Amino acid sequence: MILITKQPSFQRRFIIQDHEYRMNIAGTHYRTIWPAADNDKVVEVIDQRKLPHELCIKRLATLEDAHAAIRDMIVRGAGLIGTAAGYGMYLASLQAGTRSFGKDMKQAARFLTSARPTARNLGWATERIVARTAQCSSLRELQERCFDEARAIADEDISCCRQIGRHGLELIRKIWEKNGKKRPVNILTHCNAGWLAFVDYGSATAPIYAARDDGIDLHVWVDETRPWNQGSRLTAWELTQEGIANTLITDNAGGHLMQKKEVDMVIVGSDRTTHTGDVANKTGTYLKALAARDNNIPFFVTLPSSTFDWNLDKGADIPIESRPGYEITSITGPTETGKMETVRLAAEHTQTANYSFDITPARLVTALITERGVVKADRMSIHSLFPEY
Amino acid sequence: MILITKQPSFQRRFIIQDHEYRMNIAGTHYRTIWPAADNDKVVEVIDQRKLPHELCIKRLATLEDAHAAIRDMIVRGAGLIGTAAGYGMYLASLQAGTRSFGKDMKQAARFLTSARPTARNLGWATERIVARTAQCSSLRELQERCFDEARAIADEDISCCRQIGRHGLELIRKIWEKNGKKRPVNILTHCNAGWLAFVDYGSATAPIYAARDDGIDLHVWVDETRPWNQGSRLTAWELTQEGIANTLITDNAGGHLMQKKEVDMVIVGSDRTTHTGDVANKTGTYLKALAARDNNIPFFVTLPSSTFDWNLDKGADIPIESRPGYEITSITGPTETGKMETVRLAAEHTQTANYSFDITPARLVTALITERGVVKADRMSIHSLFPEY
Repeated sequence: MILITKQPSFQRRFIIQDHEYRMNIAGTHYRTIWPAADNDKVVEVIDQRKLPHELCIKRLATLEDAHAAIRDMIVRGAGLIGTAAGYGMYLASLQAGTRSFGKDMKQAARFLTSARPTARNLGWATERIVARTAQCSSLRELQERCFDEARAIADEDISCCRQIGRHGLELIRKIWEKNGKKRPVNILTHCNAGWLAFVDYGSATAPIYAARDDGIDLHVWVDETRPWNQGSRLTAWELTQEGIANTLITDNAGGHLMQKKEVDMVIVGSDRTTHTGDVANKTGTYLKALAARDNNIPFFVTLPSSTFDWNLDKGADIPIESRPGYEITSITGPTETGKMETVRLAAEHTQTANYSFDITPARLVTALITERGVVKADRMSIHSLFPEY
Repeated sequence: MILITKQPSFQRRFIIQDHEYRMNIAGTHYRTIWPAADNDKVVEVIDQRKLPHELCIKRLATLEDAHAAIRDMIVRGAGLIGTAAGYGMYLASLQAGTRSFGKDMKQAARFLTSARPTARNLGWATERIVARTAQCSSLRELQERCFDEARAIADEDISCCRQIGRHGLELIRKIWEKNGKKRPVNILTHCNAGWLAFVDYGSATAPIYAARDDGIDLHVWVDETRPWNQGSRLTAWELTQEGIANTLITDNAGGHLMQKKEVDMVIVGSDRTTHTGDVANKTGTYLKALAARDNNIPFFVTLPSSTFDWNLDKGADIPIESRPGYEITSITGPTETGKMETVRLAAEHTQTANYSFDITPARLVTALITERGVVKADRMSIHSLFPEY
């Protein structure tokens, strides 16, 4: 069962000594997912369906809770759902049978991975935990190992994002210097590859936060990102919390802004990237990549290596998630009086199709920004940066 | 003052003997604008802000009413706002001074044209009426001439759309035959260039209605068209009223569908097209044109010649309308109980930019479909079809 704590204390703090910057809500640091302070058999997450209107913390106590949280987008974003799957495996270990835990954990891995078909990080996290617990000889050992691995996945996610920020910062700095440091660097982003999509920092946002800390003047064009409105609900809010100048636009407007030279660079995240450089990301990313190419604007994709699919040669083979039509035909938000209401946006019985992702072919990607550095989106370059695969 | 008549009688019928097909709401034919049956000094329009949730008729009695109806998008779409400007000039003539009517009408023309800066049809209609009434020697003659001209503009709009339908039908038929008549022709459209955007038939939809009448199996992908949702509110509804199979998608999804070969052709309208073939249309059109080009899918623009700007050489010189941010950050629709509510979609005080149009360069346009025929989007081709300009 998922329990709700509305408007939590704002007192929860993580002291992470080795990090220079941390993501805040109203000045208080939050990760997007953490083990509950009062119960080490429970995991807490920020309910992203409610943002920015309400800050709700949900408690996940079972494998089924973790699966539902991922499937229903209580948590979303490449790094975060990978981490949630990691903690989901830990919750699964608490439910596993004394004699059947090996089989149970493999089943849990398949169950969690099925929650969102396009996201590579789900498979990556669950496979990792299955592999690292394969030698466990007792249920207790399994549970301890699962918890440690899940925590390690969360910490590595943070560390990867921080490195992505450092590498991406140099790309922003080049534009800042090329423009004579006279006007803000205008960055366009699609969807939310912010700290809300990871455990901290974010992927696409990490270079932005790093550049801000480095004194570079920035402005971000935030794509609304229909139908789930990750841009208007999450990215605009997250950037504003961090004091980054940003302007919300419709998904339709980016091409015009690029034609008018109002965009210096595009930075997006990825849900799965083939080892040949084709990028699955939120639906509409491909359109922005086309517009960037047509206007000679660099188009960067940020991703931790956990998002690479080392088995797929072609983006066209990445499964594209199809989500419910009501995401297009209805929407929820507060009325003027603050009451949350759901309104219908089209005539009743309107037929819909809701493909959540699209494929940006490698040829349109200027470079990938990974935790190990900036790399061209082609098989040889990717494999020379990650020779172990 | 604008008077509202909610849920009108559904009895209003236009008997147009020479037209094979007519646009219906619940089986009853409607134009989008007409002189009131009970008062020849009043014009009635369908309030498009309320569709598809309510069918409201608004009455326009003054020049100011007509201006507000265009500015506030009670009426919208190239042909319809041209016609509304025509009737607005008639309403202006009813308010003109006995001695100052020449000057008054010129002022009215400027006022109406300022309501929507990108739309060429506003200037076209008001300039036409100013020119055709220049020799009027009495106020009464002016008023009669204005009424006749406005009615002629409406009738010509219908006639142009019908011709566009006939020419566009042949393009659809080619694809239908090429595919062996085995599966529906999949057409993607953006915004609403339907009968609701004109007086009847529409521009982008006219070939669709003509093809339907010709027994061609069709399916239309309807872009939602943020932020005003012309697609979800108007196009999907209009097509459904006419029995055309259609599927509502987000503006982001079209690229993916094109990559998957789920789109055979794109047909859109235009708010202004330079005589060199650059097309201003609803924001996001350019992105679809890029995706169509990238996937070898023909991209057609339908327009009556009244939408051509014979003075502009470059699309970049077309003024792009900037609309209020609340169109992005809030939305109105019925709740489950049927009550209309407006909900907020982003955090309070979110900064926005709302550019309503973009420019699709001629190089991305397969052809223009006009009332005189299908023509390449270049200066020489356009001028040879319209040698009088």
